[in-house]
Amino acid sequence: MAVITAVDTVDIRFPTSVSLDGSDAMNPDPDYSAAYLVMRTDAGDGLEGHGFVFTIGRGNDVQTAALQALAPYLIGEDVDTLLADMGATSQRLVGDSQLRWLGPEKGVMHMAIGAGLNALWDLRAKRAGQPLWLHLATLSPEEIVSLVDFRYLTDALTPDEALQILRAAEPGRAERIARLRDEGYPAYTTTPGWLGYSDEKLARLCREAVDDGFGQIKLKVGANLDDDIRRLRIARESVGGQIGIAIDANQRWDVPDAIAWVAALAEFDLAWVEEPTSPDDVLGHAAIARGVAPVPVATGEHAQNRVIFKQLLQAEAISVMQIDATRVGGVNENVANLLLAAKFGVRVCPHAGGVGLCETVQHLAMFDFVSVSATIDDRCIEYVDHLHEHFVTPTVVERGRYRAPEAPGTGAEMLSASMAGYAWRAAAA
Amino acid sequence: MAVITAVDTVDIRFPTSVSLDGSDAMNPDPDYSAAYLVMRTDAGDGLEGHGFVFTIGRGNDVQTAALQALAPYLIGEDVDTLLADMGATSQRLVGDSQLRWLGPEKGVMHMAIGAGLNALWDLRAKRAGQPLWLHLATLSPEEIVSLVDFRYLTDALTPDEALQILRAAEPGRAERIARLRDEGYPAYTTTPGWLGYSDEKLARLCREAVDDGFGQIKLKVGANLDDDIRRLRIARESVGGQIGIAIDANQRWDVPDAIAWVAALAEFDLAWVEEPTSPDDVLGHAAIARGVAPVPVATGEHAQNRVIFKQLLQAEAISVMQIDATRVGGVNENVANLLLAAKFGVRVCPHAGGVGLCETVQHLAMFDFVSVSATIDDRCIEYVDHLHEHFVTPTVVERGRYRAPEAPGTGAEMLSASMAGYAWRAAAA
Repeated sequence: MAVITAVDTVDIRFPTSVSLDGSDAMNPDPDYSAAYLVMRTDAGDGLEGHGFVFTIGRGNDVQTAALQALAPYLIGEDVDTLLADMGATSQRLVGDSQLRWLGPEKGVMHMAIGAGLNALWDLRAKRAGQPLWLHLATLSPEEIVSLVDFRYLTDALTPDEALQILRAAEPGRAERIARLRDEGYPAYTTTPGWLGYSDEKLARLCREAVDDGFGQIKLKVGANLDDDIRRLRIARESVGGQIGIAIDANQRWDVPDAIAWVAALAEFDLAWVEEPTSPDDVLGHAAIARGVAPVPVATGEHAQNRVIFKQLLQAEAISVMQIDATRVGGVNENVANLLLAAKFGVRVCPHAGGVGLCETVQHLAMFDFVSVSATIDDRCIEYVDHLHEHFVTPTVVERGRYRAPEAPGTGAEMLSASMAGYAWRAAAA
Repeated sequence: MAVITAVDTVDIRFPTSVSLDGSDAMNPDPDYSAAYLVMRTDAGDGLEGHGFVFTIGRGNDVQTAALQALAPYLIGEDVDTLLADMGATSQRLVGDSQLRWLGPEKGVMHMAIGAGLNALWDLRAKRAGQPLWLHLATLSPEEIVSLVDFRYLTDALTPDEALQILRAAEPGRAERIARLRDEGYPAYTTTPGWLGYSDEKLARLCREAVDDGFGQIKLKVGANLDDDIRRLRIARESVGGQIGIAIDANQRWDVPDAIAWVAALAEFDLAWVEEPTSPDDVLGHAAIARGVAPVPVATGEHAQNRVIFKQLLQAEAISVMQIDATRVGGVNENVANLLLAAKFGVRVCPHAGGVGLCETVQHLAMFDFVSVSATIDDRCIEYVDHLHEHFVTPTVVERGRYRAPEAPGTGAEMLSASMAGYAWRAAAA
């Protein structure tokens, strides 16, 4: 028997605002940060569980304090029991009535619980000697269903319906695993499109994206319409007619503004418009989707939980679901989100970038391909080529595709030198 | 010129779980708590700004850490400048891009910002020598509109429409102020209905509620249908046919369950069904509202911000809007919520109870009566007779009505002896 002996936390901040990497219409000067958690046990196997919440700087201390609040729920607990029934473990943390009041199931406390669950998943996958995507992909449909909290979902998705989706995807799992290992998973790149970049840098990075084999790029928009038109023209001229160009407003608009603004950009044949308005505004997204059709609407990186995703799907508000690895209640809630997308037939193109989001979310997309949606058509994972050097098993993107990771775990583990070097303030629970 | 010199915080917890006060189907054993903030200045006038976030125990340390994160935004700032334009002050805090990432505009960080703004309102009202409700009620329509962040609202409510609502309510302000001072504001009581109470205690408290002059009581439901039927029968027999009985499920149900459960309680002539499902589920509430009509649906104590309220109104999902004094972005966002309710013609019956919620939310309801909706018909503020003794100016409810407070400030100020006596852990920023 082994128990959890420590839940150590670190407030890690990278000074990305200096170079305006990551700048957009709502976030002019982010400092990419991670409220980071390391779970240790007395198993003597040398394995640790790593998890984190991505933030953009100030407030990362608050997020780290929320991680510390998990320690009493974890320290001294039997590791095998926690890992053997991750559905029950998730319910125990997410369902704690006193912690739940702080959301419920949203914001700082919910993201912290998600990071705690993800650290447990990291430990479980390492113990199994598998990368998370493969570990999840080899579970039975019943085991996968047992991970999901169906509370608030049953008007859209029942456990039986989820089971049917997963059983329908069982044939061909082995072939899809082999295909992933052979071909990887398509990526698109946001590297060229940050709002703070000059026109020259934009054009150069667009050409590089094409040379690097990406089939789609994304530009930040929403600060100034004339600038957006000029930048989209530069991008379209730089990438040619065969490459998709998505735009991302990062919640900048009200509903009427979004519809008018996107109409003014119609000539650029947009792959999608992302986060046109508040991520809480299901009805607003639905109105925008009707107003900008046939341009697809995408959102999800700030969707707080499965209840928001359920409604976005019910209201036909999105054509592209963008799950995020650290915004919701961990792997468990993202499994629910993937099942919802499959039920409604909406494609999933995960949000990534930041710090560590590429490393972690790729596992969810690959699991989805093998065991849930069973398709890769029209799908792609966001990619930004920043900060990967800080991870033990950094994402590998080649010729515009994520290579399937083979290292055990979730990909979250950061190099200890990076943790120490960018620790803004360290604290141990 | 005076500046803010300190933002002191206290983690205050009352051991209410011992007596099962506050027990419901989702929160079996709450410890009513306050993440508390005191703002001090060098003005030499002895005035402090007090604000807090209500929580139910564990995690109150995380909420307190979020209050501490406000200190760098406030300490050293000119008090007159901050207080003179509370719209700009609100935008500066709510709109800080790095803090905003932690929500956005929801959960721990948003509630902390709300508490910071409420502490500034407390200071402003004290400086004016007015209770908050009167202070707000004597602002011009233009000044009131300037408090509101209309971002994400303009598809439902524009600044011009808000101005029209407020101007229409200008005639009669003085009469309504006099009427409030004379008659107070109607209250309903949740004191009898906690789930942990015995049948005998329920019956006794129901009779006492009638004797005390309340026109409506509320019972917690949702754990067991047979128990609910038995308890509602006891309550109806105890209060007679003239007293309203509302029920509160505290988010216990999925959509189909809610409709079936409420149908099984139809014989009891329910005043409303409250929080039938997830507070995030706008479409779910709308489906429930259609399914349980004519029983009114109420929600709001966990509605995270104005964007959720906007949608609940747009979708005709609620007939009763239950604002909460500490869940959203402070007085400013609650002014937006009151304006939305007025625009859609939905009555506001604020959530209270907890600790300090009665003391603070009464000001918003009274301001609404004087200057926004201009009506008191069918409206009432929740009342629970717990923990008022800890406040400097405790709520006074007589013959089932809140007496209009006359003490300057928001009502949030707790006795220093109570702060010290129930401090779980104190920290100064």
